[in-house]
Amino acid sequence: MAIAWSEKASSMESLSLSPPVSPSVILTQDELKKIAAFKAVEFVESGMVLGLGTGSTAKHAVDRIGELLLQGKLKNIIGIPTSKKTQEQALSLGIPLSDLDSHPTIDIAIDGADEVDPHLNLVKGRGGSLLREKMVEGACKKFVCIVDESKLVKYLGGSGLAMPVEVVPFCWKFTANKLQNLFQHSGCVANLRNDCKGEPFVTDNGNYIVDLYLKKDMEDLQVASDAISRIAGVVEHGMFLDMATTVIIAGELGITIKNK
Amino acid sequence: MAIAWSEKASSMESLSLSPPVSPSVILTQDELKKIAAFKAVEFVESGMVLGLGTGSTAKHAVDRIGELLLQGKLKNIIGIPTSKKTQEQALSLGIPLSDLDSHPTIDIAIDGADEVDPHLNLVKGRGGSLLREKMVEGACKKFVCIVDESKLVKYLGGSGLAMPVEVVPFCWKFTANKLQNLFQHSGCVANLRNDCKGEPFVTDNGNYIVDLYLKKDMEDLQVASDAISRIAGVVEHGMFLDMATTVIIAGELGITIKNK
Repeated sequence: MAIAWSEKASSMESLSLSPPVSPSVILTQDELKKIAAFKAVEFVESGMVLGLGTGSTAKHAVDRIGELLLQGKLKNIIGIPTSKKTQEQALSLGIPLSDLDSHPTIDIAIDGADEVDPHLNLVKGRGGSLLREKMVEGACKKFVCIVDESKLVKYLGGSGLAMPVEVVPFCWKFTANKLQNLFQHSGCVANLRNDCKGEPFVTDNGNYIVDLYLKKDMEDLQVASDAISRIAGVVEHGMFLDMATTVIIAGELGITIKNK
Repeated sequence: MAIAWSEKASSMESLSLSPPVSPSVILTQDELKKIAAFKAVEFVESGMVLGLGTGSTAKHAVDRIGELLLQGKLKNIIGIPTSKKTQEQALSLGIPLSDLDSHPTIDIAIDGADEVDPHLNLVKGRGGSLLREKMVEGACKKFVCIVDESKLVKYLGGSGLAMPVEVVPFCWKFTANKLQNLFQHSGCVANLRNDCKGEPFVTDNGNYIVDLYLKKDMEDLQVASDAISRIAGVVEHGMFLDMATTVIIAGELGITIKNK
């Protein structure tokens, strides 16, 4: 598909795209992710403490930060990884790392999302790193979320894909049933996530993931969020409400930047 | 101290004490715990699914259930233990065990508490088993809490002892700081719990415990509870609000039974 690239800045100034893209290039989803990631890294300045996201889109941002450090265009960066996987990637790129205990305030976090609703609320965690992502991204002054346009939804859960909840392994079926019953009115089905070997997927924190599949929206999201958090056995959930300060969306027609 | 024993039943019928206690016996704290525990076991009937608590008071109840099973006075009991320790104790007593996945509804749970306020809200978890206790005791029709009178407080945290919060080990200092800041107005100090070797105490779920020490009450407890649960990194906290249906208090002057 031939695409015409443009840049739309919603409620903020127009921004130049870097690197430039020819209007007639056909871009894959991965290329769109990369464009959004590179755009986000333009916000990064030398001396910053950075939250480093996890997943296929965030990976491009971490690669780009490593590249700019190598080129000397960025200096004195400290990265706070949101997963063991990102930690390994960042170490391999020579990005100096720390953690929230030593750096409880982060300048900018850059990370992908599985869903973005019109109010910039997110679903995250299909990669399984929702807890550490929420800790890091809850500690930053600016959270730049980077997505390709396939991630835009009318309401959270609206993609029909998983809304992940991290639970303790102890009696996970009991917890999964509680979650399913909680959103019965939204046609919720709760499934344990398995890894490629058919064993329960285990998070970096030694927990399981219960994926919620919804047929309708959850209505008041803050109420839904609190109701999930109140369930004993739940560690964290994948709704990131009112956390993203900027969302960069790479789509067929160009980049759109939305700000809170 | 010579004590006169009586029985007070608050908002319910008077109850007979079993075994009978002479009015002039001097009782230790452990004996008071045992009396409360034995009283609670009087609620148990053959065929019930029972939540088995953890700690020095609950241990007496589990012992008593084992004894009654052995004597044939109770039959067809299924126990749901709230910790690995209680599981071991119950197995050694020959109590048949199951879990919440197989038995999501429990007839009666019997467990101790670290604090009981005038509204029968509890602090639990100084033994470190708060998460499994909350899961089990949140699933029961009747939750009988058993304490000696030293556990009565004017407000939760009022004993000056720990209000425990189970947290993921990842960046626990960051989470502890968030908890301390949350209750700054109550003079909160948050400390990581260590074991006898000076290493972080590890729960049955592989997590740490941050103990909160308060100088003043937390005001609205439901608001406080939700605020703690919202912190990414918190797994569960030791406030058990509106969960106990009956509290049995063994004190110098006898047993008091309070019902919701």
